[in-house]
Amino acid sequence: MKSLGKHLIVELYDCDFDLINDVSQVEKILVEAVAISKATIVQPIFHQFSPHGVSGVVVIAESHFTIHTWPEYGYCALDIFTCGELIDSDASLAYLQKAFKADNFSVMEIKRGVLNLPADRLRHKP
Amino acid sequence: MKSLGKHLIVELYDCDFDLINDVSQVEKILVEAVAISKATIVQPIFHQFSPHGVSGVVVIAESHFTIHTWPEYGYCALDIFTCGELIDSDASLAYLQKAFKADNFSVMEIKRGVLNLPADRLRHKP
Repeated sequence: MKSLGKHLIVELYDCDFDLINDVSQVEKILVEAVAISKATIVQPIFHQFSPHGVSGVVVIAESHFTIHTWPEYGYCALDIFTCGELIDSDASLAYLQKAFKADNFSVMEIKRGVLNLPADRLRHKP
Repeated sequence: MKSLGKHLIVELYDCDFDLINDVSQVEKILVEAVAISKATIVQPIFHQFSPHGVSGVVVIAESHFTIHTWPEYGYCALDIFTCGELIDSDASLAYLQKAFKADNFSVMEIKRGVLNLPADRLRHKP
């Protein structure tokens, strides 16, 4: 079943409090994850909340990576939405789970843009 | 079942080509949708692709709105990820479907951060 995009909905549990509460660490790790996937960064945004928590978005030419962290619960909500056959989002996910020291995680994979078109007409954005 | 966040995964079909190919229109509509939900904007990013297509992200204090458009297919991949009881993401979605003139759409609602904690301890970021 062909689609325009592949969206990983990831729940990371039991992560390291200090890591996921540090906006500079979260940015460094998420940007490295994008590089591992071989996606092209358009623009990143990272924001530190008070008293704790970080939100980060990296817009990529092939859609986006987002993360929202709740250090007080050791939890991160991670989304990896990519288009095209050349992006290795699974490698990014493996890196992120390890980098944030998530002892447990769950993943759902959703196909986005399953259109009623011949497969050879489904192209991602250049 | 209590959770930290509510994530609407939305597929908008048969949208207006010119609207979803115009970065300034897409930005105006998505920012208005955020206002309708009563979420608080942290930072927006919008990007026009060549030859067509727009990506937009609005980081909000309560997580994010994202959109990726494929005008050539009349298709938009929309995500509305919000936290807290006070945000009306359903009203945003109704507005977006109408604003982009989507003749058809589908929605999945996913609870994010369903943690093994008493419900009164589950708080969203301030």
